[in-house]
Amino acid sequence: MPNKITVAILGATGAVGQRFVQLLVDHPFFEVTALTASERSAGQRYKDACRWVIPGDPPPSISEMIVSPLEAKLAAKLVFSALPAKVAHEVEPRFAAAGYAVCSNASALRYEKDVPLVIPEVNPDHLTLIERQRKDRDWPGFIVTNPNCSTTGIAMVLKPLHDAFELKKAFITTMQAVSGAGYPGVPSLDILGNILPYIGGEEEKIERETRLLLGRVVDGERIEAEFVVSAQANRVPVTDGHTICLSLGFKESPSVEETIAVLSEFQGLKQVRELPSAPDHPLRVNIEPDRPQPRRDRDVGQGMTVSVGRVRPCLLLDLRMVLVVHNTLRGAAAGSILNAELLASEGYLG
Amino acid sequence: MPNKITVAILGATGAVGQRFVQLLVDHPFFEVTALTASERSAGQRYKDACRWVIPGDPPPSISEMIVSPLEAKLAAKLVFSALPAKVAHEVEPRFAAAGYAVCSNASALRYEKDVPLVIPEVNPDHLTLIERQRKDRDWPGFIVTNPNCSTTGIAMVLKPLHDAFELKKAFITTMQAVSGAGYPGVPSLDILGNILPYIGGEEEKIERETRLLLGRVVDGERIEAEFVVSAQANRVPVTDGHTICLSLGFKESPSVEETIAVLSEFQGLKQVRELPSAPDHPLRVNIEPDRPQPRRDRDVGQGMTVSVGRVRPCLLLDLRMVLVVHNTLRGAAAGSILNAELLASEGYLG
Amino acid sequence: MPNKITVAILGATGAVGQRFVQLLVDHPFFEVTALTASERSAGQRYKDACRWVIPGDPPPSISEMIVSPLEAKLAAKLVFSALPAKVAHEVEPRFAAAGYAVCSNASALRYEKDVPLVIPEVNPDHLTLIERQRKDRDWPGFIVTNPNCSTTGIAMVLKPLHDAFELKKAFITTMQAVSGAGYPGVPSLDILGNILPYIGGEEEKIERETRLLLGRVVDGERIEAEFVVSAQANRVPVTDGHTICLSLGFKESPSVEETIAVLSEFQGLKQVRELPSAPDHPLRVNIEPDRPQPRRDRDVGQGMTVSVGRVRPCLLLDLRMVLVVHNTLRGAAAGSILNAELLASEGYLG
Amino acid sequence: MPNKITVAILGATGAVGQRFVQLLVDHPFFEVTALTASERSAGQRYKDACRWVIPGDPPPSISEMIVSPLEAKLAAKLVFSALPAKVAHEVEPRFAAAGYAVCSNASALRYEKDVPLVIPEVNPDHLTLIERQRKDRDWPGFIVTNPNCSTTGIAMVLKPLHDAFELKKAFITTMQAVSGAGYPGVPSLDILGNILPYIGGEEEKIERETRLLLGRVVDGERIEAEFVVSAQANRVPVTDGHTICLSLGFKESPSVEETIAVLSEFQGLKQVRELPSAPDHPLRVNIEPDRPQPRRDRDVGQGMTVSVGRVRPCLLLDLRMVLVVHNTLRGAAAGSILNAELLASEGYLG
Repeated sequence: MPNKITVAILGATGAVGQRFVQLLVDHPFFEVTALTASERSAGQRYKDACRWVIPGDPPPSISEMIVSPLEAKLAAKLVFSALPAKVAHEVEPRFAAAGYAVCSNASALRYEKDVPLVIPEVNPDHLTLIERQRKDRDWPGFIVTNPNCSTTGIAMVLKPLHDAFELKKAFITTMQAVSGAGYPGVPSLDILGNILPYIGGEEEKIERETRLLLGRVVDGERIEAEFVVSAQANRVPVTDGHTICLSLGFKESPSVEETIAVLSEFQGLKQVRELPSAPDHPLRVNIEPDRPQPRRDRDVGQGMTVSVGRVRPCLLLDLRMVLVVHNTLRGAAAGSILNAELLASEGYLG
Repeated sequence: MPNKITVAILGATGAVGQRFVQLLVDHPFFEVTALTASERSAGQRYKDACRWVIPGDPPPSISEMIVSPLEAKLAAKLVFSALPAKVAHEVEPRFAAAGYAVCSNASALRYEKDVPLVIPEVNPDHLTLIERQRKDRDWPGFIVTNPNCSTTGIAMVLKPLHDAFELKKAFITTMQAVSGAGYPGVPSLDILGNILPYIGGEEEKIERETRLLLGRVVDGERIEAEFVVSAQANRVPVTDGHTICLSLGFKESPSVEETIAVLSEFQGLKQVRELPSAPDHPLRVNIEPDRPQPRRDRDVGQGMTVSVGRVRPCLLLDLRMVLVVHNTLRGAAAGSILNAELLASEGYLG
Repeated sequence: MPNKITVAILGATGAVGQRFVQLLVDHPFFEVTALTASERSAGQRYKDACRWVIPGDPPPSISEMIVSPLEAKLAAKLVFSALPAKVAHEVEPRFAAAGYAVCSNASALRYEKDVPLVIPEVNPDHLTLIERQRKDRDWPGFIVTNPNCSTTGIAMVLKPLHDAFELKKAFITTMQAVSGAGYPGVPSLDILGNILPYIGGEEEKIERETRLLLGRVVDGERIEAEFVVSAQANRVPVTDGHTICLSLGFKESPSVEETIAVLSEFQGLKQVRELPSAPDHPLRVNIEPDRPQPRRDRDVGQGMTVSVGRVRPCLLLDLRMVLVVHNTLRGAAAGSILNAELLASEGYLG
Repeated sequence: MPNKITVAILGATGAVGQRFVQLLVDHPFFEVTALTASERSAGQRYKDACRWVIPGDPPPSISEMIVSPLEAKLAAKLVFSALPAKVAHEVEPRFAAAGYAVCSNASALRYEKDVPLVIPEVNPDHLTLIERQRKDRDWPGFIVTNPNCSTTGIAMVLKPLHDAFELKKAFITTMQAVSGAGYPGVPSLDILGNILPYIGGEEEKIERETRLLLGRVVDGERIEAEFVVSAQANRVPVTDGHTICLSLGFKESPSVEETIAVLSEFQGLKQVRELPSAPDHPLRVNIEPDRPQPRRDRDVGQGMTVSVGRVRPCLLLDLRMVLVVHNTLRGAAAGSILNAELLASEGYLG
């Protein structure tokens, strides 16, 4: 790929925007050519406009770039959107209409029937919705979305199990890191030595997006998977890494051994495995009694591998297990970039 | 009650033992006359033998008491046991055989069919097992136990709901404070900014003790309740207060309104409500969207009231909700003392 | 005091405002008759306008009060100000000019030469500046301030030592709790598992206010104490309680024993000791090797006693020691209330 | 270096031992050929004998190695010691007497007049003490030590300043991460939401080792530097990275600008800069108002660069500043490995 694809980051100064910046420096496919932020920040150097919340400092090659206002004339072919849902709802279609490929981390358009919601190892075939999207909306560009951070980890674990044993029911309880709320996000007085048993809108996203991701596309129609998910979302005093507890019921009650085998063998399609951001193994199964843990396991596979452990029988359904997903890498910016890499390799970026 | 009942605390220097000390100073019914600890500590002043982990300092009236070794000749009528399970299993029967009334916080004997496992507001009638216990074992004394810290909160919430709607299934995920592991307990390197998705033996205790507490005593036999509980226990970086997420299925599917009404109206028997450590309300229902929280709600009712909130429909069963229980007060030492108060008021302490 | 003095709280919905509310319920001298907050909150019930950040809930007697806008016609004789400095600078003089007695926790007017900056046990005689203030400014009311939260603890420890041994130099390093920054205050992403080595304006306040508090009033002039203070302020992941490390040099080099004796014997004037919020002992000396600690010692004396420990020789100056002060009680709202109690008992509230 | 030097790790299962393991995998100079641990662990596979406390898992190439007991017949030329001081005091001389080169992280022998205490960028010439050590003790091997974790950061910042301006006085207050206490180390009940204002022996180490490191070796005698250090050590709820506040007085009072220039230009000798573990810059100067911070800055230069910021005038001495040092990398295992690299490059490893 001799000429890199030019990309812009929308909402580049926020917590997810910063992850995009960090990950796109020296990317083999992409080159950052524009950054946008709110009116207030436009015109400033990136390093001045941004309170960098990731350990270390903004990359030197980006630090001096001037932040643009959010308008649809950016010197880029692809845009990554780290915009808030409300803004994204209005802005992202404008970019698609103007011919950009949009890879969005926002929830705004995930539920539109012609907008793919994709994890490359889970449902790469949903990209075929792009064709319908462009046709129905008469857009030269298009929009692809990645799921909510918790849902990403959940769907990756459920995918091989659903394929093998047909999932019917999933009880889910999350313990989510504060970085998921952005910056400034959760006030320290709310979370130091404390738990918040509520994250606005999160439970609905988990309950819905999981079904979309594991659904099928038939004749250009996305058909939701038929299992039912019930979720409780909690915020915990952890900086990065969501920990998620699952109780699962299947049509074909699998044993613990069968389950571990299926999880261990899971991998994406060959073309997905070869993408630059794809980990060697999308899942990793822990057999230690007290793993996975967010601080110890979130960075497995450069934060792209989901760890799953404590696979054991449930007294009420078939199985219990616990997973950890890095919420701002696999569950946000890096997930969105992996989608873009798939788009590039599949020829969607022309 | 002009003459107070003399009491000893077994394992008085540990984290739960310290709570007993704190709560029994100036108690209207009881007077601490002996403290025991391990061989190493025996013979020392309490304040020297003990690393006090509760905010503040050991009460002056206890600080100078000399710690005794653990043997069954203590100047006391009643003993509170904060012993580890293994030691308790051997020692508590010796004390009962020597004529002491034993109120135990240990799990060692909770599952013996003639040893009451009691929360005064939930199953005070289980104390009738004492008669059988003394007769079958030919003991002048007896043993009464209180449940595991998490189970205490769960059973208090489930009791009125089970009575009203007949519980069938309960999915439970706990987020437990580090004080539940005693001192030194959980190393800080394991839990700062981290979650441990495993607490040895905890899930089994929750799954079993809940059924015992909500069971019935018929003709001297304790019959377990018939619902099924499936539990996942997690340790979180919170000092005190367990937060517990529930999904519940009932025979008679209650509405959210009916559920809140039943929870709000719950109270213990008149004789229980009048005990010194009994709170005005055993349960408190939160209607705010993000409550209960451990740091903000664990101390309601002096740590004796269980807070419950987020009562809402579950997509798979009838209801979801979240509770907070103070694990070292209601869930341990203060729960044991409330049992002793009930024993005193019911005439078991002669 | 049969008729209580009516009081208003300015900025009642903020973190310090909430402490005022909590502490003034059932106060023997004062009765809350008005609450103010920003335009946006005015007209709402207190419990709706306020995100309560203190454990528990707003007191029922205040919860239903309607919040007023910030204007100088409040049904109260005394106002407690928990306003931000900038607002306070404009508003507090208006209240004094309108005849109110103002007890302010804000820094805005602390350095005015005719505005007393007072800790009752340290410099109650500075209240004599009120007379000059009223005369020079032609105000029927007046303003009294309490110091910055860190400074309060420092000045209370330094006062008896300066009186006895004449302080010359003080090196100070603080480790301050997040509640000192108000709500929402410090973002959790900045402080979980982290230290912030900077708090805007704090070092200057410590360096200056300490000299004012330990200065003298001579003929209506406040003369600063002549020692020099050098301060470094840090924010740490602690909810409440500031921990402060000191190295001190005196004219008369005291021994550790003399120092401990002087600290232990320190008490306020008789009329101060009898005030409702005054603790039995303003200082408490810890002799344990690892105390004081914020979580264990902040609540000594209802949060009104400053704990000091690790008194030992310094290799460079005379002494090293560490103190803990409850920053939102003694160091803010309760300190302001203690000032008001002194004003009442000294006849300033007519 | 075609044939790697064989190395053993003494105390390989502890927290510092694990860092040695992590850092020595794929090291260009060294190859791990033996691991020792306590009697209890000997004979087990490393992965079974060790509770891995670093994020991730033990490296596969080491996981299966069998742990040896602690005796002086190891298939290695060099040993890294992560032993507790008391054990090190007895064992390390035995290894030196048996012909091993010992690089010790323990404090046991740091103060022996013929044992070099070394940071390669600070005092590489102290290695000349080895000759005397071998001669006086008649050892075929030898011992070299690295300083205490806090002292490492302090000495690296003081070195260029002392050379340029002649240090006279240093007031030091540390805020140290829990990983410095090893595993299990600090109980979570002691440190969650809390500060411990005491670390046994730490202040004495800082006060003494700083003078040794900045001292000179003249005719085989180590002469301490003549400045005086006064230290207060605190433990804070941070996992890794010590934050240290300094007030410094010099003979030649430098300006802030001069100081920043000297710090920025500091570098080790050419032969040190070329070592594999040496960072590009031993120091990094932060100009942002609120840096350095442990979570954001500990990993600069792979954890080998010390960050220093808030350089500003002190009201009492010349300068105030704050530094962050990674305590288990530069301040422990990686510092010890850098010493070994210097030994190798200087020909001490034959």
